[in-house]
Amino acid sequence: MNALQERILKEGKVLGGGILKVDSFVNHQVDPKLMDECGRDFAKRFAQVGATKILTAEISGIAPALATAIHMNLPVVYARKSKPVTMPDQVYLTLAPSHTKGRMVELIVSPEYLANNEKVLIIDDFLASGQTILGLARLAEASGSKIVGIGTLIEKVFEGGRAALASLNVQIESIALIKSLDDGKIEFV
Amino acid sequence: MNALQERILKEGKVLGGGILKVDSFVNHQVDPKLMDECGRDFAKRFAQVGATKILTAEISGIAPALATAIHMNLPVVYARKSKPVTMPDQVYLTLAPSHTKGRMVELIVSPEYLANNEKVLIIDDFLASGQTILGLARLAEASGSKIVGIGTLIEKVFEGGRAALASLNVQIESIALIKSLDDGKIEFV
Repeated sequence: MNALQERILKEGKVLGGGILKVDSFVNHQVDPKLMDECGRDFAKRFAQVGATKILTAEISGIAPALATAIHMNLPVVYARKSKPVTMPDQVYLTLAPSHTKGRMVELIVSPEYLANNEKVLIIDDFLASGQTILGLARLAEASGSKIVGIGTLIEKVFEGGRAALASLNVQIESIALIKSLDDGKIEFV
Repeated sequence: MNALQERILKEGKVLGGGILKVDSFVNHQVDPKLMDECGRDFAKRFAQVGATKILTAEISGIAPALATAIHMNLPVVYARKSKPVTMPDQVYLTLAPSHTKGRMVELIVSPEYLANNEKVLIIDDFLASGQTILGLARLAEASGSKIVGIGTLIEKVFEGGRAALASLNVQIESIALIKSLDDGKIEFV
């Protein structure tokens, strides 16, 4: 069992609707040592994919993506969910359903920072249904970039995200794979 | 001139309304090496303040706060701007005006992660009017914690934030201090 799995067992809380609360070390409070370790782990797992840029989605993707970016020394771009005043009028925009928000959210990236021929490694906190990651992949593809890998801290295997991402045909790595949250019990694969 | 200042001169863009766009290395795309260096710098400047926790505001405070947290090995909490489903009903909440959004935004922290007697170091990307940081300080004080320092990447000295924060009576450190953006020209102190 790795450090992330141990922490999930110790502090993770199973809420209704298949939601795993990890707010004490990933989503509201962040444990920097654990995040740094996960970043190092991703850097190792994706050392051979030739990534030139890391892409994630605000908000909770930023910490794992930055930790990975530090170890790979690659720039990281986080897709915005609302367009800031500093962004040009012409952007890459897609919609993705948010499980925790119960509605569609926008994912927006400026063409300034996602160009033709980038090799994009997607890093995010969760892989659940895979819809956010598919949205990021659409943004990357719209820019003429290629996805070369997908890494997530926690994969909820029972939500089928890996199958949804199969058409991207890239290496997918998760540090903690959860088989079931039934009856409030966390079971790893 | 430090690395952040050099980068601001090279890539920063002065937009209307005193807005400095640093989206290519701080706010949309993040340069991990530069952010890591800034984190190390903050860790050194605040080595003696006895901080037990780092507090920032989502979204763009997360990267500098996490980089600092890694070097200080302290947990980092980012105030949310909307209440996620994982947060308890009872929270610390305050309002702060957002310069770039042109409206009031909520800053919300769960009492689970901001407790009595914490010594809080606030890290953020910008110090402009100081209103966001004052909001964070109110949240910390509501929890019975004490602010022990404030660090920002970029201080727009001409917006007077440092004076607004004077009543907190703590060490304030900025890595790049900008005296003026008049006529689209970036001038450091």
